[in-house]
Amino acid sequence: MKILLPTSTDLAPALPDGWEGVAVDARAEIPAEHRDAEAIVLWAPSRRHLASAAALPRLRLVQSLSAGVENIVTAGFAEEVPITTGAGLHSLTVAEHTVGLVLALLRSLPESLAAQAEHRWAGEIGGPQPLNPPEKLNSLVGARVLVWGFGEIGQTVAPVLAGLGAEVRGVARSAGERAGFPVVAESEVAAELPGTDVVIDILPGGDATHHAIDAAVLEALPDRAVLVNVGRGTTVDPVALRAALEAGTLGGAGLDVTDPEPLPAEDPLWDAPRLIITPHSAGGKPVGADTRITENLRRLDAGEELLHLAAR
Amino acid sequence: MKILLPTSTDLAPALPDGWEGVAVDARAEIPAEHRDAEAIVLWAPSRRHLASAAALPRLRLVQSLSAGVENIVTAGFAEEVPITTGAGLHSLTVAEHTVGLVLALLRSLPESLAAQAEHRWAGEIGGPQPLNPPEKLNSLVGARVLVWGFGEIGQTVAPVLAGLGAEVRGVARSAGERAGFPVVAESEVAAELPGTDVVIDILPGGDATHHAIDAAVLEALPDRAVLVNVGRGTTVDPVALRAALEAGTLGGAGLDVTDPEPLPAEDPLWDAPRLIITPHSAGGKPVGADTRITENLRRLDAGEELLHLAAR
Repeated sequence: MKILLPTSTDLAPALPDGWEGVAVDARAEIPAEHRDAEAIVLWAPSRRHLASAAALPRLRLVQSLSAGVENIVTAGFAEEVPITTGAGLHSLTVAEHTVGLVLALLRSLPESLAAQAEHRWAGEIGGPQPLNPPEKLNSLVGARVLVWGFGEIGQTVAPVLAGLGAEVRGVARSAGERAGFPVVAESEVAAELPGTDVVIDILPGGDATHHAIDAAVLEALPDRAVLVNVGRGTTVDPVALRAALEAGTLGGAGLDVTDPEPLPAEDPLWDAPRLIITPHSAGGKPVGADTRITENLRRLDAGEELLHLAAR
Repeated sequence: MKILLPTSTDLAPALPDGWEGVAVDARAEIPAEHRDAEAIVLWAPSRRHLASAAALPRLRLVQSLSAGVENIVTAGFAEEVPITTGAGLHSLTVAEHTVGLVLALLRSLPESLAAQAEHRWAGEIGGPQPLNPPEKLNSLVGARVLVWGFGEIGQTVAPVLAGLGAEVRGVARSAGERAGFPVVAESEVAAELPGTDVVIDILPGGDATHHAIDAAVLEALPDRAVLVNVGRGTTVDPVALRAALEAGTLGGAGLDVTDPEPLPAEDPLWDAPRLIITPHSAGGKPVGADTRITENLRRLDAGEELLHLAAR
C-alpha cells in the first residue's frame, strides 16, 4: 500500500507494515505511476495537486497537516474517503506567536524600534516605571487575560501567560474549568470585558463568529486593553478596530490574520496606530506530523476511529 | 518607629506593630522632621535623596527595591546599617521582557513591522514555512536555549521557554540540576555553544563577566543563533557583536542593556542588522515590594537574618 508524502515539509513517519512512502511535489500533479496510492498527506498543496489527489481511485485516507481543511473538503474527494485534519499540530507555534504579539505590544517593541532607528535611547519607556498604570498596560504581571476560543491552542498559551504572572480565563461554549483555568460561557462574555486587559482571539471562521469582536466589544474593554487575533480575520470588525485605536479607546492590537488575506496595500488598517500586523506567520510549521501520520495509518489498518476526522 | 516609603512607586506594606510609614519624595532631600526614621525604602532615588538618607542618624535598615545596589553601597551609609536588595522583585518582569525579545527575533517582528510600514503583506515570512531551517531560527519548538546566569530570573524564564517547546539548559558556577533544568558549569560553556540556538545573558556586571560574550563565543555559535542580553551591558563585546551580525554569523540579537547607558546617538551599534535595542525596560517595576518590606521589618524586629542582605 502506498502513501504519498509531500516534499513541502520535512516528513519521515514510521510506517506500519505493508505501507510504502513515496515523496511527491505538492505543487504539481500527482505522477501517473502513483495513482495507485491509498493514502495521501497534504501540506500547502497547489490547486492542481489537490485536484489530482481527489481523482486518485484507490484512496482510503486524506491526512491534512493544516488545522483548517475547507479547501480540501470542497476539492471533490469521494464522500466515503475520510479527511483528517492537522488540528493540534500548530498549537505550540501559534501559542508562541501569540505570546510574541502580546509581549511586543505590552513591552512597546515597535516604539523601541522606532527610537532605535533614530539612534534614540527611549528613556520614556525604560528605567523605573509604574506597573500597569491605567493608561498603559506594560506587563503581564497581574494582567487579566481572556482567551476567546479555548481549544488546544488556547490551552497551550494559557499556562505560558500564567507563568509570567497573568490571570487567565477562557471563553468557550459552556462555562466551567478546563486545563486548570476558569472558563466563562460565550453568552456571558460581555460581563467579562470591563475587567479584561488582554483579549486573545483564537476563534474559528464562519458565520457564527463573523465580527464577534465588534465595536460594542471594543468599547466595553478598558482603554489600556490590547487585542491579539490569531484566529481568523473575519472574527474582528476592522472598521471598529481602527476607530478604537485611533480614538485611543484601545491600547493596542496585534493581528496575524486579516480579512482578506493578503491585506491589500490600500487597506487603511495598515496605518492604524499601535497596531502590529504579521502576515499569517503564527503557524505554518506543523509539529508532530510524523507521529500523527503513523497513528492514523495504524488506526486505518485496525478499523479504529481516526484522529481529527473532518466534518463533511 | 518610622519607615520612609518613596512615592516613586506605589507602596502599601502591612507594617509590624510599632512601625509608622511616611511617604517621602525619592527625588528630594529627606525633610528634617523625618530624620528620626529608623528604616528607609529606596526606589529610583536621586543623588540628593540618597545622600540625605545616608545621613539619617537612627537608621537600622536600608531596603532597596533594586536588584543592583552599587550606588547605595557606595553612598556613605554607616557600616553597621544593613542594606538589603530588591533581588527577586524583578524576576517576572525581566523574564517577560526576555521572552518578548526572543520571540520578536524568532518571529521576525521587526521585518513584519517594516513590511507593514510599506503596506506590504510579507509573504516570505508568513504561510507554510520549514520549522527552524539551518539558516533561520523561527520557533522555540526544539530550539536549544542556554540561560547564562541561572539565578532567580533564569529559573523564572526557563519553564516559560520550555512550555513553548524549547530545550533549556542553565549555565552557573557549578554543574548539576537546578529548578528541574540541567545546569552546565561556566568553565565548560565553550563545549555547549555549537549546539546552542538561543543564548540568554543574565550575567551580573563586574570584572569577572566583562565581555564574557566575546568574538570567540559568538563564533562558536551556529549562524542562526540569537543572543538576548538582559544582564549587564558590559558582559557583551559590542564590536564583536556588531561584526557577527554584519557578517551574518549570528542570526540576531536583542539588547535591553548596553555599555554605556544610555547608548550615545553616534554609537555604531544602533544600526547593526537584525538587532533590537530596548532602553533598559525589562525590569523597573518591582513586584512584591510590600511583602518584602513587611518581612524584612519583621525580621529586623525579631533579630533574624534579613532577606537579600547586600555584601558591603
